[in-house]
Amino acid sequence: MLITWSGFTSVGGMNTDLVDALPVSLKVIGLPHVGYDHFDWEAIKKRGVIMCNSPGMSDNDVADIGLHLILSTYRSTSLFESTLRSQKNAALARRVVLNFDQDTGRADPGNEPMDPMKYVHGHRVGERVVTSPAGQRVGIAGFGGIGRALAKRLHVLGMTIHYFKRSQLSQKELKSLEGIPLVRHESFESLAKESDVLVLALPLSSSTRHIVNDKTIGILPAEARVINVGRGPLVDQAALLRGLKSGKLSGAGLDVFEHEPIIEEELLSRYDVTLLPHIGACTQKAVERALINSLENIKNVVVDGGHGIHPI
Amino acid sequence: MLITWSGFTSVGGMNTDLVDALPVSLKVIGLPHVGYDHFDWEAIKKRGVIMCNSPGMSDNDVADIGLHLILSTYRSTSLFESTLRSQKNAALARRVVLNFDQDTGRADPGNEPMDPMKYVHGHRVGERVVTSPAGQRVGIAGFGGIGRALAKRLHVLGMTIHYFKRSQLSQKELKSLEGIPLVRHESFESLAKESDVLVLALPLSSSTRHIVNDKTIGILPAEARVINVGRGPLVDQAALLRGLKSGKLSGAGLDVFEHEPIIEEELLSRYDVTLLPHIGACTQKAVERALINSLENIKNVVVDGGHGIHPI
Ligand SMILES: NC(=O)c1ccc[n+]([C@@H]2O[C@H](COP(=O)([O-])OP(=O)(O)OC[C@H]3O[C@@H](n4cnc5c(N)ncnc54)[C@H](O)[C@@H]3O)[C@@H](O)[C@H]2O)c1
Ligand SMILES: NC(=O)c1ccc[n+]([C@@H]2O[C@H](COP(=O)([O-])OP(=O)(O)OC[C@H]3O[C@@H](n4cnc5c(N)ncnc54)[C@H](O)[C@@H]3O)[C@@H](O)[C@H]2O)c1
Repeated sequence: MLITWSGFTSVGGMNTDLVDALPVSLKVIGLPHVGYDHFDWEAIKKRGVIMCNSPGMSDNDVADIGLHLILSTYRSTSLFESTLRSQKNAALARRVVLNFDQDTGRADPGNEPMDPMKYVHGHRVGERVVTSPAGQRVGIAGFGGIGRALAKRLHVLGMTIHYFKRSQLSQKELKSLEGIPLVRHESFESLAKESDVLVLALPLSSSTRHIVNDKTIGILPAEARVINVGRGPLVDQAALLRGLKSGKLSGAGLDVFEHEPIIEEELLSRYDVTLLPHIGACTQKAVERALINSLENIKNVVVDGGHGIHPI
Repeated sequence: MLITWSGFTSVGGMNTDLVDALPVSLKVIGLPHVGYDHFDWEAIKKRGVIMCNSPGMSDNDVADIGLHLILSTYRSTSLFESTLRSQKNAALARRVVLNFDQDTGRADPGNEPMDPMKYVHGHRVGERVVTSPAGQRVGIAGFGGIGRALAKRLHVLGMTIHYFKRSQLSQKELKSLEGIPLVRHESFESLAKESDVLVLALPLSSSTRHIVNDKTIGILPAEARVINVGRGPLVDQAALLRGLKSGKLSGAGLDVFEHEPIIEEELLSRYDVTLLPHIGACTQKAVERALINSLENIKNVVVDGGHGIHPI
């Protein structure tokens, strides 16, 4: 007996009750994805069930989304695009973003008629100037498959790569990043201090939940950005909103959310945040690779009597 | 007497009448930007005025916007983000995009109630699967400073770089692209045939106006994408819209528009198009560099008696 499943999230995850209800004949669970924070892993282990995940099947795809979110926050694309769609005029759109209000995260045209002859270049949003990612420091927390794929992309943009990982990189991992200067930090706090943009590419666990909170936002450099392509609860979303409203943070890019699938109105209505509905790994080929990998894990256990190719 | 100016676009460009009205003492025009398609260059030359532009001041910034537009069209981020903002739920957003309508370029939730237990992964948009840029062919038309900066970025994503340029690359240019396999095409048509995504990084001239038209869209591969970071009139916008509606094109990313600053409603209402209000070069540092460069060009002519550092 075997099972593959991409979720149970819609019923609150594979909790202890659900694990108890699993058929006694179950030998192996094959996950076509990486994260298993929504599975009661201790209870599954106790039942003697092997669980295998699918790491590395979508590193590049998730890194592409991370890259997109970083470009978006630096260049304010969500604000510029939504303002263009509402103003229907490129020159007006560049003017209206000057009215960006930190508190609401929105730019409204206001009542004053605008002088159509006044040329606005588009290098300012509200009180802030638009900055290029080149020369900025990115801090990647969780330097696994996704984090490293992202580092390669950001190096080409001219960013300096900082990371925090508890263990050392292997020789093979170092080799894959050859030519890219890397700054390793021993703690998340040390990383945060140097992160003009902080990227979360971590698994969710008791030690990483709310790793971004009021305190850690406080130690980020002024006008820092926060990107989350890991799991929603890595970020205390209320603290993130406080950081955006106060201007301590100049933007955020989120593929995952604390109370996913629900996204709070206060976040949805802001345009200094770029939001995507958890599509990091969502390309046709990544899904195919992950499904095939799950089947191979299951075959390894059920047919070949192994312990799974990617056991957790 | 001297003048720097970033536009005249709001009054239809520096046309023959305006050139005639320029003071006779005028010696030099310093442009803090690259393109000068909105200046009547022949009339200016006849007046004996030197005109200098500012090439290379924003190559990386425009390339970053090109990269953003390419990632957006491959991963359908404008559609996913706008649907997430309206549905307020990540799972629902991934479902609603399945209703994407090629004709309107929009995805509406429809009237049928959605089964909240049905898990949708987000790797499909309407009838199409979501594709990663990795392994795809990009065709860059206009392989100057911007095109080459973009090539470096896209190589890291795993794309194959094709380009069309009338002259050969210099040794210095080739050296700056070392390690990146390049396929050169002798004609725009040959490039178009091989471009899963076609990027315009060309100046506007009589030979490039409407270079993307019904005929050239016709020879692109099925479901190709078109990106424009050059000038709006490079694209016959009506033909582009026909290509999107028919499904021949699977998306477009535009920083510039045919009738800029005005953008037609039919384009604005589509979410298979990512639109930005001509902000390619709009970062604080790029603007500073370009202004300083203009002043240096003017100083070269007026103070040092030269012919300008970047004469056109
Ligand atoms: N947005 C998406 O669609 C999407 C897709 C895939 C994975 N993910 C998430 O991204 C996470 C990372 O994925 P990956 O494929 O890179 O995994 P991975 O296992 O290759 O890398 C995770 C890295 O995090 C490090 N790490 C773990 N706990 C840590 C801690 N407390 N402090 C510091 N570092 C720690 C590990 O050492 C490892 O280097 C996954 O766990 C998953 O939750 C999201
Ligand atoms: N979106 C923006 O904000 C923005 C910013 C800067 C420049 N631009 C536009 O991008 C264009 C390119 O900028 P650049 O800095 O790369 O300029 P560049 O002069 O470095 O490069 C232009 C390239 O196009 C090639 N070219 C010219 N005419 C051609 C033709 N008919 N067929 C094929 N190739 C041709 C030239 O050989 C050259 O390689 C500018 O002319 C400008 O219109 C847009």
